[in-house]
Amino acid sequence: MLYTARSMRPELTDRIRHLLPAHSDRPEVNLLYRMMRDYPERGGKGIRSELLLLSAQAHGVQVGTPAWESALWLATTLELFQNWVLIHDDIADDSEERRGQPALHRTYGVPLALNAGDALHAYMWAALLQAGVPDAAPEILTMIHRTAEGQHVDLAWVEHREWNLQPSDYLEMVRLKTAYYTVVIPLRLGAVVAGRVPDARFEEAGVALGAAFQIRDDVLNLTGDAQSYGKEIAGDLLEGKRTLMVLDWLTCAAAEQREVFLHEMNRPRSEKRPDVIRQLLAWLLESGSVTRAQRTADELATRGLTLLTEALSGLPDPLAAGTIVTVAQGLANRHA
Amino acid sequence: MLYTARSMRPELTDRIRHLLPAHSDRPEVNLLYRMMRDYPERGGKGIRSELLLLSAQAHGVQVGTPAWESALWLATTLELFQNWVLIHDDIADDSEERRGQPALHRTYGVPLALNAGDALHAYMWAALLQAGVPDAAPEILTMIHRTAEGQHVDLAWVEHREWNLQPSDYLEMVRLKTAYYTVVIPLRLGAVVAGRVPDARFEEAGVALGAAFQIRDDVLNLTGDAQSYGKEIAGDLLEGKRTLMVLDWLTCAAAEQREVFLHEMNRPRSEKRPDVIRQLLAWLLESGSVTRAQRTADELATRGLTLLTEALSGLPDPLAAGTIVTVAQGLANRHA
Repeated sequence: MLYTARSMRPELTDRIRHLLPAHSDRPEVNLLYRMMRDYPERGGKGIRSELLLLSAQAHGVQVGTPAWESALWLATTLELFQNWVLIHDDIADDSEERRGQPALHRTYGVPLALNAGDALHAYMWAALLQAGVPDAAPEILTMIHRTAEGQHVDLAWVEHREWNLQPSDYLEMVRLKTAYYTVVIPLRLGAVVAGRVPDARFEEAGVALGAAFQIRDDVLNLTGDAQSYGKEIAGDLLEGKRTLMVLDWLTCAAAEQREVFLHEMNRPRSEKRPDVIRQLLAWLLESGSVTRAQRTADELATRGLTLLTEALSGLPDPLAAGTIVTVAQGLANRHA
Repeated sequence: MLYTARSMRPELTDRIRHLLPAHSDRPEVNLLYRMMRDYPERGGKGIRSELLLLSAQAHGVQVGTPAWESALWLATTLELFQNWVLIHDDIADDSEERRGQPALHRTYGVPLALNAGDALHAYMWAALLQAGVPDAAPEILTMIHRTAEGQHVDLAWVEHREWNLQPSDYLEMVRLKTAYYTVVIPLRLGAVVAGRVPDARFEEAGVALGAAFQIRDDVLNLTGDAQSYGKEIAGDLLEGKRTLMVLDWLTCAAAEQREVFLHEMNRPRSEKRPDVIRQLLAWLLESGSVTRAQRTADELATRGLTLLTEALSGLPDPLAAGTIVTVAQGLANRHA
């Protein structure tokens, strides 16, 4: 049964397809329905749903039982969460691309995309209701609350041109914005759907692994391959994101480089100049900041994996538990 | 007990205040918390929660019982729905004002306001969970689905510069965008919280009353008093809204007036010229379209009130049922 979680991906896509409305007699509404299906149909790595399904198995949920059916609906809930959040994130950051195609608001405009995200948010709750696991609702609420808080911190720094930040600020932001929805809550939901109390160590383990995951993601944003990454390269610089590399580089950059950087960051995204962005990227890469960020990610990954292994020991299905560690290792050390 | 529903307003505001988080150790997050409380603390008419609480009483829920407590949480849910939707609507329409103060995104920027709306959306579900009425969740889902569909239709007309529309298109849009969340679902939830099956006629009655309410609202937008209305007057013209008056006027306007109108409507909001908007407003008022729209609202109000009275007959609390009709009459015939 080791392959189950990953092989469930088409099953989850099918559930989303059946849950979302397909046809309206009002032609305009059909466009809304198409927009709601757009991001889910672009695919995605499905890391969160995979972790949840593996965690459910590790905690003793057997494939084919009603609890497994509930776990599949909870996994669908996480997929829908990811998709509505991405629609709204792309608006907030004015991102160009998502999963290799134009961001939704770039095709349909901000008002329609904003509304489609809200509609998808409601269907996320519909999926949760299908799961029929009352104790899952507080977990989902915690997940959205923390993610929205992290998103707020990230966006507030951009909005208020705040660059007086330490690496610890970045790690706190990422804890809220990424770790809960990527690792902590998927692991906890697996326990909840099995009728067990989640191990308290999932939180600390998930925070470390989530941070490692986000640092790798930020590195890929600067150095990755656009095609496999699915977004424009160095988009974070265009969006003025406070990444660990940038905060680290600012602490040791020469005064004139720092000045060029801050001047460019204070320009609106549409007025940022590609040649300056390329220069900034070159300085960042030369400075060793990327290497140091990778080292921080290594340390976080090691700590997270140790805690995770401890938290998972003694669970009913050690094979599934071992696979969780493998998957977590992959996401905390991803290179694409 | 007739005054209970309206006098419950401070109680609902208190529930929102206690449900929403107050303090974070992260200073940035405190700004998010303040933003979430902003619209709820500006007040509002509380029409939806009043209808819900009256409907609960009419269906036999006694004040002070656990069912009444549930009804209060459902009313809080409707208030939170209204508030997050308004934050996002104001972004989509780029509105200037809300309840007499600047729209949230005008003060904090679109990214932070968009995210605050999402955070408030999640707390709406937290309020629903507090109610502990499983059958209420499908009603809330229907409410959001229909409202988002109506919002999409409204925004798609603006986005796609669609003016080839009939009054029936307007009525269909308003049915989706306004009627469900303003009348149909509040009435139905009152039955649900009493453990009864909602009368099927609430739907048709609510659709007629909701449409009448929205037509009056659109008229007030053109002719009202800015202070009591709480938004800029003729904002709908600046936002290019397809109101019943405008669609009616377009069918009979002189060719050159029509041309001036369509030309102005195709300009972005920020480039619309106040003097031209004033001229358009004058033409609209002179044309008799406002009077005809009021007549349509009169007819809808009469039909809705007749259906509503029938649907409410024979309920356990005739006094509360009678008050619903009075409140519905007020909202379908509002002049401020």
